[in-house]
Amino acid sequence: MTTKQVLMSAKGHARAAAELAQFDGLDIICLNPGGVFTRNGADIAADEVDPEIFWASLDLHYDGLLGDFFRVILKGTRGKWVQLFNAGLDNPAFRKLMEKGVRLTKSDAQSPAIAEYVIAHAFSLLHPIADQAAAQAAHDWQRIEFREIASTRWLMLGYGPIGQAIATRLAPFGAKLDVIRRNPASDPHVARFGTDADIPAWLPDADVVVLACPLNDATRGLADAAFFAAMKPGAILINIARGEIVDDAALHAGLARQQPAFAVLDVLPVEPLPADSWHWDHPQVRVTAHCSNAGDGPPARGAARFVDNLRRYLAGEPLYNEAARSEVGL
Amino acid sequence: MTTKQVLMSAKGHARAAAELAQFDGLDIICLNPGGVFTRNGADIAADEVDPEIFWASLDLHYDGLLGDFFRVILKGTRGKWVQLFNAGLDNPAFRKLMEKGVRLTKSDAQSPAIAEYVIAHAFSLLHPIADQAAAQAAHDWQRIEFREIASTRWLMLGYGPIGQAIATRLAPFGAKLDVIRRNPASDPHVARFGTDADIPAWLPDADVVVLACPLNDATRGLADAAFFAAMKPGAILINIARGEIVDDAALHAGLARQQPAFAVLDVLPVEPLPADSWHWDHPQVRVTAHCSNAGDGPPARGAARFVDNLRRYLAGEPLYNEAARSEVGL
Repeated sequence: MTTKQVLMSAKGHARAAAELAQFDGLDIICLNPGGVFTRNGADIAADEVDPEIFWASLDLHYDGLLGDFFRVILKGTRGKWVQLFNAGLDNPAFRKLMEKGVRLTKSDAQSPAIAEYVIAHAFSLLHPIADQAAAQAAHDWQRIEFREIASTRWLMLGYGPIGQAIATRLAPFGAKLDVIRRNPASDPHVARFGTDADIPAWLPDADVVVLACPLNDATRGLADAAFFAAMKPGAILINIARGEIVDDAALHAGLARQQPAFAVLDVLPVEPLPADSWHWDHPQVRVTAHCSNAGDGPPARGAARFVDNLRRYLAGEPLYNEAARSEVGL
Repeated sequence: MTTKQVLMSAKGHARAAAELAQFDGLDIICLNPGGVFTRNGADIAADEVDPEIFWASLDLHYDGLLGDFFRVILKGTRGKWVQLFNAGLDNPAFRKLMEKGVRLTKSDAQSPAIAEYVIAHAFSLLHPIADQAAAQAAHDWQRIEFREIASTRWLMLGYGPIGQAIATRLAPFGAKLDVIRRNPASDPHVARFGTDADIPAWLPDADVVVLACPLNDATRGLADAAFFAAMKPGAILINIARGEIVDDAALHAGLARQQPAFAVLDVLPVEPLPADSWHWDHPQVRVTAHCSNAGDGPPARGAARFVDNLRRYLAGEPLYNEAARSEVGL
């Protein structure tokens, strides 16, 4: 049996070691902080590293090792498959990899965390928590009526793993969900599927608008002045996709007209957001630091996805969540 | 065919008139603000009113007409069935009615609103919205990690329509739900069913404790000093049942030890809560004015329930959600 070299972070290996032990014929190389490669805990030279399989876990990003990791793939001669930690393929490196013939599998390990972010923020604005707090501060025993989430309508742009994770969690509340997607499909959680052409007609119905689409030439600047002018006054905008999907000046102008009334932005036009940006102190804006994925679940879920796909890869089965060449513009 | 006299509020009649027109042989009497009875819009004398069927809709409560309405039932000689707007039967009037042989049907029309209240408040505390807001106020682009709702464990006391409405909405988030109930049942949304005897052992596992049980001799003062001492430090308590279930002084003492870290109280020991009560200004307490049911959905859902049960009553079928005599202590 041929040995297959696999590259992963030392942290990823520590999390998945027990599961990985089930596979024979793997030569597991770990990338450690400082850019050091190890095999079974012993340092090895960089020129020994030319893996066939790569597991890009999320910790590489936060430990500043992602550049080193992708350089190994791009310089290598034997790379065949990369398991990613993410779903968005707008970084040009992914196109280069696919041009080299490397297969990419996306990960939905972050989707539950991001779905929780979207729903927790939306509900905290839809439910009259702020009005209730104001009555409490005034020692005012006041019945505060509210529109139920059950009667709200949501419009979501994009319906990948994140959009679907939001949809399944929203469904039992009875809210109606419309979805804009390149390829409309059938789904019990979706009231209406449409394409970009439906956005102007559907925006006026939406109490919550969620941007959960990939960034590409079709979506860059999609939320422009006309988009905000079509929103229902009082609606909520939530962007967990990419800052570049929103025309920032048009959003600022729309907020003044309550179109939207609130913007929850986990992604911004420039990241990190400059300290003098208008977003920070705007009373209708919630800013978070591209950390809607920062739940405690992605590490374990990501490891489980990699182990499952590794089993499939070694067995010659189709990989779960493999990227199509069209997703990187090829 | 015998004519059956039915009493309802003028508001309820206005909402359900179109649906009620399908039934023959009903003599519909409306109770109007000021205590005036009308038939087809014309005033009638109180001594003409002795209904067989009563629809107690929620508006009677808010219009101050509930006392008048129940006096008609208690004084009447022909009352056979009352459709209620609520689920809790702790008011002694319900026992008197059942002693007279009047059938009572409870309503779950408020359950979705109350479930939304519970989940919106819980999520707004479980998700790091307050920490995110603090970072934003400091213009600090800071990754804020969070424990996912997916990994939380909830303990619910009571599993009537409100508890079940919470459970179905919580299920897709992956949180584990334990339920304390007099009669444990089987339910796909519940991890463990137990009885009062399990409370001390299960409380230390619970991140969120929801009181959703009826008030009766077994539950009065149930959340006492020992209860709070057994809670997981940092947990959240939500009471949408009755204020009397909580030992108020024990709660106050528990908050100082983060057992619980937050209390969300829609029901209080005295209502309206006196303006000098400690609850109003406590930083770990959210007070609302017994209005977790104040969604816009109950009026329409309540009318639909009455119309459906009226059809069943007239057809001699079992009524939906009929109260057992044991629920009022008979």
